[in-house]
This record gives sequence, C-alpha cells and structure tokens, in this order.
Amino acid sequence: MKRLVLIIAVVLGSFAFTQQKKTKVIFFGDSITELGVKPGGYITRIDSMCRAEGLSAQYEFTGAGIGGNKIYDLYLRMEEDVLAKNPDVVVIYVGVNDVWHKTLLGTGTDPDKFEKFYQAVLNKLKAKGIKAVLCTPAVIGEKNDMSNPQDGDLNRYSNIIRSIATKNNLQLADLRRLFIDYLVKNNPENKERDILTYDRVHMNDKGNQFIADAMWKLLKSL
Amino acid sequence: MKRLVLIIAVVLGSFAFTQQKKTKVIFFGDSITELGVKPGGYITRIDSMCRAEGLSAQYEFTGAGIGGNKIYDLYLRMEEDVLAKNPDVVVIYVGVNDVWHKTLLGTGTDPDKFEKFYQAVLNKLKAKGIKAVLCTPAVIGEKNDMSNPQDGDLNRYSNIIRSIATKNNLQLADLRRLFIDYLVKNNPENKERDILTYDRVHMNDKGNQFIADAMWKLLKSL
Amino acid sequence: MKRLVLIIAVVLGSFAFTQQKKTKVIFFGDSITELGVKPGGYITRIDSMCRAEGLSAQYEFTGAGIGGNKIYDLYLRMEEDVLAKNPDVVVIYVGVNDVWHKTLLGTGTDPDKFEKFYQAVLNKLKAKGIKAVLCTPAVIGEKNDMSNPQDGDLNRYSNIIRSIATKNNLQLADLRRLFIDYLVKNNPENKERDILTYDRVHMNDKGNQFIADAMWKLLKSL
Amino acid sequence: MKRLVLIIAVVLGSFAFTQQKKTKVIFFGDSITELGVKPGGYITRIDSMCRAEGLSAQYEFTGAGIGGNKIYDLYLRMEEDVLAKNPDVVVIYVGVNDVWHKTLLGTGTDPDKFEKFYQAVLNKLKAKGIKAVLCTPAVIGEKNDMSNPQDGDLNRYSNIIRSIATKNNLQLADLRRLFIDYLVKNNPENKERDILTYDRVHMNDKGNQFIADAMWKLLKSL
Repeated sequence: MKRLVLIIAVVLGSFAFTQQKKTKVIFFGDSITELGVKPGGYITRIDSMCRAEGLSAQYEFTGAGIGGNKIYDLYLRMEEDVLAKNPDVVVIYVGVNDVWHKTLLGTGTDPDKFEKFYQAVLNKLKAKGIKAVLCTPAVIGEKNDMSNPQDGDLNRYSNIIRSIATKNNLQLADLRRLFIDYLVKNNPENKERDILTYDRVHMNDKGNQFIADAMWKLLKSL
Repeated sequence: MKRLVLIIAVVLGSFAFTQQKKTKVIFFGDSITELGVKPGGYITRIDSMCRAEGLSAQYEFTGAGIGGNKIYDLYLRMEEDVLAKNPDVVVIYVGVNDVWHKTLLGTGTDPDKFEKFYQAVLNKLKAKGIKAVLCTPAVIGEKNDMSNPQDGDLNRYSNIIRSIATKNNLQLADLRRLFIDYLVKNNPENKERDILTYDRVHMNDKGNQFIADAMWKLLKSL
Repeated sequence: MKRLVLIIAVVLGSFAFTQQKKTKVIFFGDSITELGVKPGGYITRIDSMCRAEGLSAQYEFTGAGIGGNKIYDLYLRMEEDVLAKNPDVVVIYVGVNDVWHKTLLGTGTDPDKFEKFYQAVLNKLKAKGIKAVLCTPAVIGEKNDMSNPQDGDLNRYSNIIRSIATKNNLQLADLRRLFIDYLVKNNPENKERDILTYDRVHMNDKGNQFIADAMWKLLKSL
Repeated sequence: MKRLVLIIAVVLGSFAFTQQKKTKVIFFGDSITELGVKPGGYITRIDSMCRAEGLSAQYEFTGAGIGGNKIYDLYLRMEEDVLAKNPDVVVIYVGVNDVWHKTLLGTGTDPDKFEKFYQAVLNKLKAKGIKAVLCTPAVIGEKNDMSNPQDGDLNRYSNIIRSIATKNNLQLADLRRLFIDYLVKNNPENKERDILTYDRVHMNDKGNQFIADAMWKLLKSL
C-alpha cells in the first residue's frame, strides 16, 4: 500500500514537474546580443543568475543576435529566427546600427521607417500571442556630457522606441536612460570607452552585468 | 433575315468587345513616377499613345509614385497602394533614392537588403498572379563618361535588378542602359543635366517621352 | 582772447574726437552670418543698437558670411575677405556645416582637422595683431532634450571651440550654451523650429536679436 | 705627361660624377604610399629598378604617406613632411580618401575644395622650384564594368586632377586610366579585389609592380 502511494506520488510529482512549461525567452538584436551569449555575455549572465536563484526550471534563454542588424533586418529574418521557435517572450534590442550606419555606410534607417518596421515586428509577435520587451539602444560612445557624435540621434530613436512601447502597452528596458545615469556618476574623466563598453558600443564585463541586472529584473516582473 | 443576323452579330460583337477586360497597369515608384502622371509625364504620354493607337479599351494606367521612396517604402505600402487595386501588371521603377540617400541623408539601402525587399515585393505580386515589369534606375547626373558621383553605385544596383529580373524570369525595362547609350550620342558637351532631365534626376519633356516610348513598347509586348 | 582760445580748443578737441579710429569688426562665417547683414539680421541689429547708444563713431561692422562655409572655407578665403580689409576684431562663427554636411553631403569636417584649420585661421589673425572672438554653433534643431540628430556632434565641436578659446586666451560667445539654456525654458512643446530659428538652423527675428544681444555685450567688453 | 693628364682627367671626372646632385623624389600621399616603402611596396620596387639599371647615384626616393590622408591633410603637413626636406620632385598620389570618406565617415572632400587645396599644394611647391608629378587615384574596387560604388566619384575626382595637371602644365601618372584598362583585360570574372589590390584599395604585389613600372618610366622622362 505504501509502495503504491509512493508510486502515485512520484507519477503525480513528475507529471506536475513536466507540466510546468518553461518561459522561453528569445533575445533578438544586433552584435551586442550576438555577443550576449558568449561566456560573460549578458544573456549568459541572466542564465547564471536564473540558475543561482533556483529558477532554471522556469526559464529558457536563447540569443538571436546578428552583427550589423537594423530594425528591418530583424523584420526580414523574424519568421525563421524567432517565430519558428515559438517563444513566449521576445526581447528586442536594436537601434545602434540604424543610427550608426548613417555615417559609417550611408545606410542608416529613416526615423519614420524605423517606427514602421518596429511596429511591423510587434504586430507579427502580437498575432502569435508572443510578449515583447523593448530596449532603447545604450550608447555609441560613453562621454557623459552629450558630446558623443551620435548622442542626439540615439536620443531621438530612443524617444521613438519609448513612444512605441507606450502605444503598444509594452514593457521597456530603457537601457539608454540607465546608461546615461550611470555614466554621469561613474565616468569622472569623461572617457569615451572602458566604463561599460570596451569600444564605445560593445559591452565589457561591467556592461554585460549592468544589462543582465536590468533585464533579469524586468523579465521576472512579467 | 440577313438583317436580323447582322444585328445579332453586331450586338454580340459589341458585347464581346465591352466584355474584354482592360489590362490594369500600375506604375509603382518614387518621385519620377509621381511626376509621371502630370501633364507631359511619362505615364500621361503612354496613355496618350495608347489612345492614339486606338487601344484605350484595352489598357488602364495608374500612377503610384511617392517622392523619396526606396524599395522598402514600396514594400511597406504595396498592400494599400497596389494589391488593393487588383492590377494585372505592375511596373516597378525604383533605385534612385536607395543610392542617392546614402550621401543625401545617410539612409540609403544596403545592396543585399535592396535585393531582399525587391524579392519580397515580387513574391507578393506573384502570389496574386500579378505580372511585374522591372526597371533599372536611369540617372543621377547625365555626364556620359561615368563621372557622375553615383554612377558606380547606380550601375551596381542596376546589376542587382537585372539579376533579379533574370532569376524571376521577368521583363526588364533597362532604362539605365538606354539612357547611357542615348547620352553617349546626344550629350556632346558632357553636361550634367538638361538632356533628358531638368535637374540630373527628374525627366524633362524629352526624358518623359523617352521613357514612355520604351515602356509602351514593352507593355504591348507582354 | 580767452574766448578765441576756448573756441580753438573746442574745435581741436572735436577734431581729435572725430579722428578717433573706429573699431572695425568683421563677422566671418556661414549662411547665418550671410543673413546677419540683411534687415533684421543680427549684424544689422548690432549696428542699430550701437547707433542707439551713441557709439556709432566707435564701431564699424561688416559681414563676411557665405552660405555652406566650413572652417576650411574660411581658411581658404580669409586673405581676401578678411585680412585685406584690415579689421581690428574678427568674430568667427562657424561649425554648423562642418557637422551638418556629414549627413547632408558626406563632406563634413573631421574633428581633428576642424581644430587644425581653426588654429590656422587664428594664427593668421594673430600675426596681423587682429583680435579674434570665437562663437560656438548654436543649433541644428531646437528640441531641448538633446534629441536633435546632430546634438551630440554639435556639442563635440563646441567643446573643441571652447578648448581652442581657452588655449589661445580668446573671448568666446558660447551661443550653443546660451541657446540650450534658452530653449529649456522657452520651448515647452519641444518643437524643432520656430523658437529662435525658422528652419532649425537659421535665425528668426527673436534668434537674431538673441545673438545680437550676446555679441554686442561681448564686443563692448573687449 | 699625357699619362698625368689622363689621370687628372679621370680623377676630375669621377669627382664630377660623385658631385652630381641626386634627384630627390618624395612620394606624398595616403596609406597606399605609406605601404609603398615596405618590402615589396611600389617605392621600394622603384628603388630596386633604379639600382638594377645602375642609376642609384642619380636618384633618392623617400616616402611621405600617411593612412587616411585627404588633399587637405597633405596641405596641412607639407611644410614639415615635404618642403623641409628640399626635394627636387614630389609625386602627389591622393584622392581615394577624399571620395571614400564620404560614405565611410561623412568627411569626404567637396570637389571644389579638392581642387582649391590641390592647387594650394602645387603653388607651395612651385614657389620653391620643386617639380610636381600628379597621380589619379587608381581604384576603390576592381570590378571592370563601372559598378564599384565609388567609380563615378573616382572618375570625377580623376577628371579634376587631369584638369589641374593640364592647367599647371605638369606630368600626370594617370593610374586610374591604366588600372581600368588593365582590369578590363585581366579581370575576366569581374572580381572586386585580388587582381591588383588585396582589399579593393591597397596594392598586392602585382599592383605595386604595376604602379612602380608606370612611375619609374615617368620619373626617368622628367
């Protein structure tokens, strides 16, 4: 009799266990996200924090970042790289190249087109019942007096993303705001790199942890 | 009796005639096409030529050009501006701004993305059974020794369009080739405007007639 | 007899007074300065204020602005347009096009070259004993949350000018700082034009008066 | 006695010979010239050819190339890097960055300013009695159907240089023309690199020899 109870308990337990669906999170973005899955990257760090908190049964994290991507690159590859994988949550982290490529290649994204393709990406996610989390682009240069060449344009595109988040009633990881606040306090020599990035754009260890902290907190709140 | 037969024949004939569905042609493009429907514009001229040849019952011509449009602008608005109108033929004339906006605004189109969005436009047309006619972008500057600043890039994007036409087995109005050949013969002072354009890009009367001739010939051959 | 002496003294005195050499001020810059000599322009306004204060015998104001000019345009034409006219003071107001032309034409000025040519201009003035007054470029867009696309780069080039002023121990009309402070207080709707400019760059009446006030005060202090 | 005369004559002759002043040639340019003095570089090759032909007593070759230089960089550093060294001949090889930096950095050179600074460089050389040899910029991309993105602009700036050479009655090494002719014949697959360059711009062994041949022939003809 005890044995039967034990068996039932085990069966029920494992049933309960296998029933709990993991929340599948895809990080969708550019090179910053591509590097996020490397050792020390922000996605790797989120995964570690998740495990350390004993929540690894509840979350699954995947990176879908490709260097140089702009919003319409995300749009063009989202069927294959995101929708086909049936995520529950997609964290969209894009905007740096939409601004940067204006001077680097002459192929940045017009602000109105940035908004249109961003909305088109969100519409496709919404149609599948996938939650979207939006991020503003952190920095191109870490000077803290708004004298990095792309600061104005980054602020403009961040405003667009903030407005899209509001319109669509979506969660926003306002990395741009967080980075600016941090740099005002923690970049006394007004250096253009080596505070949270190693090259003005891509995250060093501190930057990866900084993003991981912000995103992990937000993801748990969903 | 003979008279009755004649009457019936006439009635049937005219019925058959009015039943013949017009071929609906939409010209889909940028400012050059936007101006094409003005008096003297290339679309207006095609319509006149069509009438003069007594073919007005067979064709209907509509312009869908918007200034500044690049390939992804066409993509973003094609549902509303093209597909909703159920055309039989769509003439796609785009590429100037994809190249020009690189230096003018920093928001030109990457060549690989140009091809992807162009193919995406074609796929949507094909899915509806709509015939596509492709055009290469004529000129940005009329100097005939390949010394207009964007000549190299226009040639590159024209090569992409030619390759897309071949891959998709579609008709091509190779305006770039036709313009270059014309300018070599008809621009002895090597002027940068005022041969077929009035401002290096947009067509003067001669340019509009030149395009109308090429396109009308091609449309009748479909 | 005493009376005669008195009369002579008065005559001589007034003669001496009219002989007092006028301070010749040349405003050297781009389209903002070119427009500055028009009715209502900032130079015209400085001249009017000078007259109203009864100081017209002491100053002579000349504009030497040409639309589209960057620092190296000033360098290339300074012999003819400035040095040949033997000014006492040269107000240098440049920088907008050095930044703006990066995206507009692809021909902006590298920051290190901006500094080199600026210093070369100053060296030529110094060699002739001409006083230089430096200005920072006011705005490209009047939004007051640092979200005008060129805000970051304008701040960078303004920092360069501030640093040049310090190094050369020269007076600075920090228009950028003055405009930003004004716009924070006086642009509650965060509009991008029509506060001090009519087109994001060129001054409306208020803008011209704003600059005139700042510069006139500075010129009298020299 | 005759013998003594002969000996004296030989001694004097050889003295005269060793006294013959070497023609000092400075190659003044950008990264292509900077690399030209490396082993296998075009300047190194010219020096070797000169030695092989027993003419090393007549020529001295020096490189003055700095990566990224545009015409106004040459202007800014010519006192120190060229005039101070008292050359007899200066070979000016510039133009690639004036065109390329338009899209790469937004800081290319306006065509009219290119001409002004080029002429200013020539004026300074002429004032010192130094001979100038001009070169057109070879390639940015080796495709031979004028479909490299900068082909049009390179042709435009090459035309400017050709016109400057004519106006100033100076020798021209028309590398652009020579490269185009070579590539039409020797690039059957229409590749964009690896014919005369290794990266679309900088010379491989063949490219360095190609330039060395053209320049050495021209230098001997001066």
